[in-house]
Amino acid sequence: MYEGVVQDLIDELGRLPGVGPKSAQRIAFHLLQADPTDVRRLADVLIEVKAKVKFCTVCFNVTEEDTCRICRDPRRDPSVLCVVEEYKDVVAIERTREYKGRYHVLGGAISPIDGIGPDQLHVRELMTRLADGTVTEVILATDPNLEGEATATYLTRMLTVMDLRVTRLASGLPVGGDLEYADEVTLGRAFAGRRAAQ
Amino acid sequence: MYEGVVQDLIDELGRLPGVGPKSAQRIAFHLLQADPTDVRRLADVLIEVKAKVKFCTVCFNVTEEDTCRICRDPRRDPSVLCVVEEYKDVVAIERTREYKGRYHVLGGAISPIDGIGPDQLHVRELMTRLADGTVTEVILATDPNLEGEATATYLTRMLTVMDLRVTRLASGLPVGGDLEYADEVTLGRAFAGRRAAQ
Repeated sequence: MYEGVVQDLIDELGRLPGVGPKSAQRIAFHLLQADPTDVRRLADVLIEVKAKVKFCTVCFNVTEEDTCRICRDPRRDPSVLCVVEEYKDVVAIERTREYKGRYHVLGGAISPIDGIGPDQLHVRELMTRLADGTVTEVILATDPNLEGEATATYLTRMLTVMDLRVTRLASGLPVGGDLEYADEVTLGRAFAGRRAAQ
Repeated sequence: MYEGVVQDLIDELGRLPGVGPKSAQRIAFHLLQADPTDVRRLADVLIEVKAKVKFCTVCFNVTEEDTCRICRDPRRDPSVLCVVEEYKDVVAIERTREYKGRYHVLGGAISPIDGIGPDQLHVRELMTRLADGTVTEVILATDPNLEGEATATYLTRMLTVMDLRVTRLASGLPVGGDLEYADEVTLGRAFAGRRAAQ
């Protein structure tokens, strides 16, 4: 329906996650009218991101160097390792400024339906990292959903044979939320994990 | 918070219409993991669209040539001219396969609050096109909202002094909708525009 290259642009935009056909059209029309230098800047950063961004050879975090900012930082405690699914989880945890240890990014979660098992994740590299005994605590910070829980359960089984403290993030009521709106599973976890009032 | 170029990408994506900070992050993370050739194709089409896409010198429709497909088509009736706000309106009308005349794309609608008056639209070019008397009917197909109505009213006043039939698209109930969900203005227009039952 659209002129050739306009249709190509709509098609490419429509492949992005969360961009439906209507949004793709809307973005394409915006770009048609946009300043060419703005569009050029977007195109350039797309190319640049693929050229520059690599994965840390130690923890698989995103980096522009061989190792990431956190692995290079001598102030980060090498005895605590937080295992997450994705780079964005690292960013979320860093935002809290609570955690001073290091990370290991698995690159996803175990999901048999999608054909993702431990071999598709950086599990082997995790085991290698733990071999020298520097790490004394592993915090499993996978997502609190089916795949994340399966991954944490799998890793717990692998790690308990080693001389390590293995912990999970607490489940419970989100701060700032209303108790009445919490789902049953979350509320159940909040009860199970109740602590002495101070 | 993110590594330099990743943050740049999130910023650029966040400038697109309808893409909020969370969507921009989501798209960026998708692109980080995507096949480099896919990302390259998106970057290329962005550059290509700005290089190739021009506006028809006659009707201001989008085209890759000097004049658009519709203006070049000798089967299109040159005596009927449909005035629309944007290229996407041309596409929407073409999709109906009902209209056999030509178009004039204004490039927007009159909106004093945004500083858009007739001089910012292709109104002067419309008048020039109408001067030779080829066009005998002008259909005003601006959006049925405040700005579109203001534009249609303005154009009606300009065009009634010329020897032309000036028409507006019918307002009324959308086909397939429920009467009870129609807003009052639409329902009022549907009453005002009622026709003899056949």
